[in-house]
Amino acid sequence: MRIAFLGLGSIGAPMARHLAPPRHALTVWNRTRATADAFAGDTGATAAATAAEAARGADVVITCLPSSREVEAVADATDGLVAGMASGSVLVDCTSGDPAASRRLAARLAGAGIGFMDAPVSGGVAGAVRGTLTVMCGGDDATFRRVHPVLDAFGEKIVLCGPVGAGHALKAANQALLAVHIWSLAEALLMATRAGVSPALALEVINASSGRSNASMNLFPERVLTRAFPRTFKLALLDKDIGIAASVAREQRVSAPLMQLTAELMKVSHQALGEDADHVEAVKVVEQWSSQEIA
Amino acid sequence: MRIAFLGLGSIGAPMARHLAPPRHALTVWNRTRATADAFAGDTGATAAATAAEAARGADVVITCLPSSREVEAVADATDGLVAGMASGSVLVDCTSGDPAASRRLAARLAGAGIGFMDAPVSGGVAGAVRGTLTVMCGGDDATFRRVHPVLDAFGEKIVLCGPVGAGHALKAANQALLAVHIWSLAEALLMATRAGVSPALALEVINASSGRSNASMNLFPERVLTRAFPRTFKLALLDKDIGIAASVAREQRVSAPLMQLTAELMKVSHQALGEDADHVEAVKVVEQWSSQEIA
Amino acid sequence: MRIAFLGLGSIGAPMARHLAPPRHALTVWNRTRATADAFAGDTGATAAATAAEAARGADVVITCLPSSREVEAVADATDGLVAGMASGSVLVDCTSGDPAASRRLAARLAGAGIGFMDAPVSGGVAGAVRGTLTVMCGGDDATFRRVHPVLDAFGEKIVLCGPVGAGHALKAANQALLAVHIWSLAEALLMATRAGVSPALALEVINASSGRSNASMNLFPERVLTRAFPRTFKLALLDKDIGIAASVAREQRVSAPLMQLTAELMKVSHQALGEDADHVEAVKVVEQWSSQEIA
Amino acid sequence: MRIAFLGLGSIGAPMARHLAPPRHALTVWNRTRATADAFAGDTGATAAATAAEAARGADVVITCLPSSREVEAVADATDGLVAGMASGSVLVDCTSGDPAASRRLAARLAGAGIGFMDAPVSGGVAGAVRGTLTVMCGGDDATFRRVHPVLDAFGEKIVLCGPVGAGHALKAANQALLAVHIWSLAEALLMATRAGVSPALALEVINASSGRSNASMNLFPERVLTRAFPRTFKLALLDKDIGIAASVAREQRVSAPLMQLTAELMKVSHQALGEDADHVEAVKVVEQWSSQEIA
Repeated sequence: MRIAFLGLGSIGAPMARHLAPPRHALTVWNRTRATADAFAGDTGATAAATAAEAARGADVVITCLPSSREVEAVADATDGLVAGMASGSVLVDCTSGDPAASRRLAARLAGAGIGFMDAPVSGGVAGAVRGTLTVMCGGDDATFRRVHPVLDAFGEKIVLCGPVGAGHALKAANQALLAVHIWSLAEALLMATRAGVSPALALEVINASSGRSNASMNLFPERVLTRAFPRTFKLALLDKDIGIAASVAREQRVSAPLMQLTAELMKVSHQALGEDADHVEAVKVVEQWSSQEIA
Repeated sequence: MRIAFLGLGSIGAPMARHLAPPRHALTVWNRTRATADAFAGDTGATAAATAAEAARGADVVITCLPSSREVEAVADATDGLVAGMASGSVLVDCTSGDPAASRRLAARLAGAGIGFMDAPVSGGVAGAVRGTLTVMCGGDDATFRRVHPVLDAFGEKIVLCGPVGAGHALKAANQALLAVHIWSLAEALLMATRAGVSPALALEVINASSGRSNASMNLFPERVLTRAFPRTFKLALLDKDIGIAASVAREQRVSAPLMQLTAELMKVSHQALGEDADHVEAVKVVEQWSSQEIA
Repeated sequence: MRIAFLGLGSIGAPMARHLAPPRHALTVWNRTRATADAFAGDTGATAAATAAEAARGADVVITCLPSSREVEAVADATDGLVAGMASGSVLVDCTSGDPAASRRLAARLAGAGIGFMDAPVSGGVAGAVRGTLTVMCGGDDATFRRVHPVLDAFGEKIVLCGPVGAGHALKAANQALLAVHIWSLAEALLMATRAGVSPALALEVINASSGRSNASMNLFPERVLTRAFPRTFKLALLDKDIGIAASVAREQRVSAPLMQLTAELMKVSHQALGEDADHVEAVKVVEQWSSQEIA
Repeated sequence: MRIAFLGLGSIGAPMARHLAPPRHALTVWNRTRATADAFAGDTGATAAATAAEAARGADVVITCLPSSREVEAVADATDGLVAGMASGSVLVDCTSGDPAASRRLAARLAGAGIGFMDAPVSGGVAGAVRGTLTVMCGGDDATFRRVHPVLDAFGEKIVLCGPVGAGHALKAANQALLAVHIWSLAEALLMATRAGVSPALALEVINASSGRSNASMNLFPERVLTRAFPRTFKLALLDKDIGIAASVAREQRVSAPLMQLTAELMKVSHQALGEDADHVEAVKVVEQWSSQEIA
């Protein structure tokens, strides 16, 4: 199959690598051309100058961009995807995007005979490298079956979640929980610290009890107690993700006070810590607000 | 060693059973006398008519009551613990209590030469039956070493968390996280449901992703998706527990917006569902607020 | 000038009455035809069968509908406004609407040479009857000057707030404050009540102090203490309004935790009390949550 | 009558001035002795070296201190109030204090035959100077009637709110509303600003509409739009006050999500802006969180 891959970021590049020749005829595009050229040099893929050029002749086009805003921009630009994609081809959007934007884009593409499926992933850089990502698909069954073999190259758990937008909604739901867990765990540990409990001991006990989460089992022991705070996933993106979750909840008339409040807390943390901060660094804002470190 | 155990509720009774003869000379007391008599008949323990009578001659007195309010009442009543306990004995309070109340009680007991340690447990009825509870101790090192062999009968992980009140604070922190996780997961699943994702699939994907928690791995699959909502731990008690966590945070000047808000949500849920509701039934309030079931 | 007025609800009807002959040639339309016929019979206006018919030949078309959803529907229907309005005419939307929807609609109308201004009002039924409404306009200066004489018939304070959408945003901001004030005053009075202060005395003191608001000065003495709760403005509409404010804040990246949380509280109250409840009846939800009346 | 006045701060000093000779035999005490000496020199009052000395022989002792913590410290110190006050005298606490602390203190004083009434004031420095304060009293009717003539010297509206603690609770309720109004108005104005409305115009319209409050009518026009932010009442004290309100609500089982959340926001603002910031400067935190000034 002929594949185009747009967006060779920290997750996109290792995903694309699984699709490179001889597995597929692969054309790649990146906003920074040099990244695409280097990737092509490494893998035998072809680098394209524009999104339209990358898309031309492809059976499946995959986007993996920061947000739906970039996807819509790349789709609709003069030299964009829509200009290059042929009727009968499919756009698979692996961006952690916005369901409403996806439905709008799907409707526009349908007018040109082009299919669409949202397919955001989870599993991080490590999962992308190992090809063990979870892929959350939103679209119709026929499209899902058609692109499944392509997604299989980088995904381990590939599920059809519902109609267009359902993948994006589920990804946003997961991210909202991640944000809630990080922030509330920081609150709980600061409270315990002030009451005389060491954070390491508190985590150990919580992890043997009913309050445990992925944040308490993995993120905090490895990243917070050590003060390592490695930069693996941007707070700016988690802020965007929970903003999507909160907006979807509001549109759908789901009462979600914790999600709405946590969305505000992520926005404030993002504003305070800047564009490059890692998502777990939101903990530093909680610490600052209480003049106490978790250490 | 001579042990007194006060409070033969759903957790207390199986805990006390591990302390019964021939292991220890055990006297038990319960607000409802018949419960103590039945326990004594089953186990070879002695049933006492009053807390003072139970405490008389005991080296270690253990309380396992609904809240610190009951512990203080039992301690200070005319026929209460203080009337019966000898100088040199120790009160171990396994109640999920309030650190401030514990510090007040410890100070009063110290005046009579009586030691105090807070030692709330986690692990539920099953952990109490199997003797695999986690025990979170607050007190001094000498007291901890002295009562450790007693706690060992029902505890698997027995940790000294800090000074008096530290055990109660850590237990409250864990419970606060439990409450946050249950409520926020309900919000996230309702949002995903409205976007077209089935809750079972959403849980499966979240459990393979970064948003997982004990609530998503265990509570929701077993209790919410099945609509079983077994009554294992009262919402009234979780409301009390997160109220303690939120009060400690406020007193300690820890900024904890999520904990404060979730404390309100638990209070509202408790008010709406009544005294007998299980803690996971708080999910039903989230559902009602959005006119949508997670099913 | 030839005017069309669409939406003869409790606010719209008295507004339209100020525009009736001999002041203006007025055509009216209402979803329920009988309402338009009765209004025409009373006032000398002409009743139209469709929005298009009402709009045909009008220099200025005024809409006063429940939400932007209805405005967009009325604009774009087969027999809708766009079908009837001539190039050079202006649509003035007095609905308490959504800035984003207004910008979309303005852009569509501009393509047909039709002007647009959002112009929501405040002052209630009494202000509409007396012609003393405040009118918050969003649009360009030329349009504002052109329609000012028309608005003058029912408005006392007519201000150009900014570009298209600015009127709707400011109205939403005011409504969000109204909702925050009502809910927080209920909380404060319940707290004072439980501490032994009568609500009437509490209100009297607050109204002589720094915590006073329009809610404490007017709404609560007249409507809550008396338990009268007259139905003058629907909770369903206040829920919609603060939802707009919260959505605009999120889109504009304004951190607004109190507005976001209050939007959830209004949604829950609306869900609990139904479509006919008055906005001040949200107080009953606060009361129910605390099992205590403000009385 | 012989009066002692303790606490000659920015509110306390002008209050005490109304009680000075020839009106009453007045003894004053202040933590900083020089302040008491200067006041005595100005007014003909007598400066005391200790609280006990000030209280000795007084019929009524008035405290006006930063918080209940200082009141309890001054009461219970070796040279404190209790050491000096005679049986039959009354302590009137004009501090914006904590109902629970007041009830504890009243019980201790009752043991020594000393009466107690909480009597916090509102009206600011200007009201204290003019003698037009509102005084919110908590205590029994006999005590109220006895001290009324004393309070009359600086109070215009003097009301018995309920039993001991009721005055403090009502003052805290008012302050909580003040905090909610300031923060939510900042949110609303920032949202309107981003939508293209000038804050001055937004305030003007809100002040003609249902969203107005003392904050919008007085504080924001005079202090925020002008960027003057005069330091008249400390944010540290408003933080303390709403913390009292939120704690009372929690103890009394009043569901108060807006009050609980705003208490957190005030704590964060206080932490960010320091001990000297004025309460209205909390607006600067809202501005910073949204990278936008209200100007």
